[in-house]
Amino acid sequence: MQKKRIAIDMDEVVADALWKFEQLIERDYGKIFDRKAFSGGKIYDMFPDGQRDKVRGYLFDKGFFIDLPVMENSQEVIRELSENFEIFFTTAAMEFRHSLEDKYDWLLQNFPFVPWKNFVFCGDKSIIRADYMIDDHVHNLETFQGKGLLYTASHNINERRFTRVNNWLEIRAFFREECRG
Amino acid sequence: MQKKRIAIDMDEVVADALWKFEQLIERDYGKIFDRKAFSGGKIYDMFPDGQRDKVRGYLFDKGFFIDLPVMENSQEVIRELSENFEIFFTTAAMEFRHSLEDKYDWLLQNFPFVPWKNFVFCGDKSIIRADYMIDDHVHNLETFQGKGLLYTASHNINERRFTRVNNWLEIRAFFREECRG
Repeated sequence: MQKKRIAIDMDEVVADALWKFEQLIERDYGKIFDRKAFSGGKIYDMFPDGQRDKVRGYLFDKGFFIDLPVMENSQEVIRELSENFEIFFTTAAMEFRHSLEDKYDWLLQNFPFVPWKNFVFCGDKSIIRADYMIDDHVHNLETFQGKGLLYTASHNINERRFTRVNNWLEIRAFFREECRG
Repeated sequence: MQKKRIAIDMDEVVADALWKFEQLIERDYGKIFDRKAFSGGKIYDMFPDGQRDKVRGYLFDKGFFIDLPVMENSQEVIRELSENFEIFFTTAAMEFRHSLEDKYDWLLQNFPFVPWKNFVFCGDKSIIRADYMIDDHVHNLETFQGKGLLYTASHNINERRFTRVNNWLEIRAFFREECRG
C-alpha cells in the first residue's frame, strides 16, 4: 500500500529560527531577548519601526539558516515516522535567495535519512499535495487540502481552527493514533 | 473565480539545457554535437561509458543553468497565459545543489512577470498540486493528478499516453481551446 505523505515545514517546526534571531539581536542591540516575553506576533514585530526592518532583514543574510538548532525530539520522531509515512520537507524559501543552499545543506546534515528527492523549496504552499501538513503558519494550512497540524509558535497562539501540536512528542502521539485508526 | 493553475517545468521546456551540453561537449571533445543526430535518449547516453558520467556531470557545475537560452516563444506565451491562469515553475532541482541559485536568478531574469512565490524547486514532482503540468519527463506526468502535457524531447519521442506539444505555439493553441471549452 502507498504510504501516506507528511509535508513538514522547517522554520520553527524542525529548525529553531527564533534562536538565531536571539543571537543576532543580542549582537546588535546588546540585550538578551526572552522568547517567553512576547506572544501573539513575530519576533521582529516586537521592535519599533526603525528597527523592525533590520531585525527581519536577518532572514536575508547568507548563513542565517545554516546553523539553526534542531527542534527537540524532531529527529528521532521523524525517523520513526519515516517507517510508516513518506516524509517531505516543504519550506517557503523563495523570498530568501541566500537561504536556498543553507537550507539544503542543513537538511542533509540534520536529516540524512530523508532523501533530497523529498525536499521542496517553494513560495506558496498551496502547490503542495500531501496527506498531512505540519506548519506554524495558518495561511499554509488554510489552503491545504489534507489534514493540517498547527505547530505552536508565538504568532499563532490565538488560532483555534486546526489541530494544535506543541512539540514533537505530541506529533508522535498524533500519528501513532492515526496508524491505529 | 479561482484561476486554474499550470505547473511548468524548466529544462527542455522553457530553458534550452541541450544548448549548454552542446557548448561543453564542443569545448571538451572538440566536436559539434548535432541535436538532430540522436533520438530516443538523453544526450549523455550517446557517449560511451567512460565519457557518459563526465558529460552528465556538467549538470552539477555551478553556472550550468545560469545562461541557458529561453525556449522560443515561451516568454510571450507564458505572459499571455498568466492573464487567465496561475503560472508556477516546478523544477526538479534538488539533485543539483549548485543549480538552486542559478535557476532562481534565471527565472527572475527571464520571467520577471512570474513572482518568486510561484517558483517550486523539488525532487519528486508527485508533490505538486495543479490543474495542468507541462513537462518533458514521462515519470512526472505519470504521478500527476491533473492534465499532463508532454513537451517533446529526444528522450520521450516514443511515448503515446499524453497530449504531446512540440513547441510553445502549440501550447498557446491548446490553452486557447481550453479557455473556449
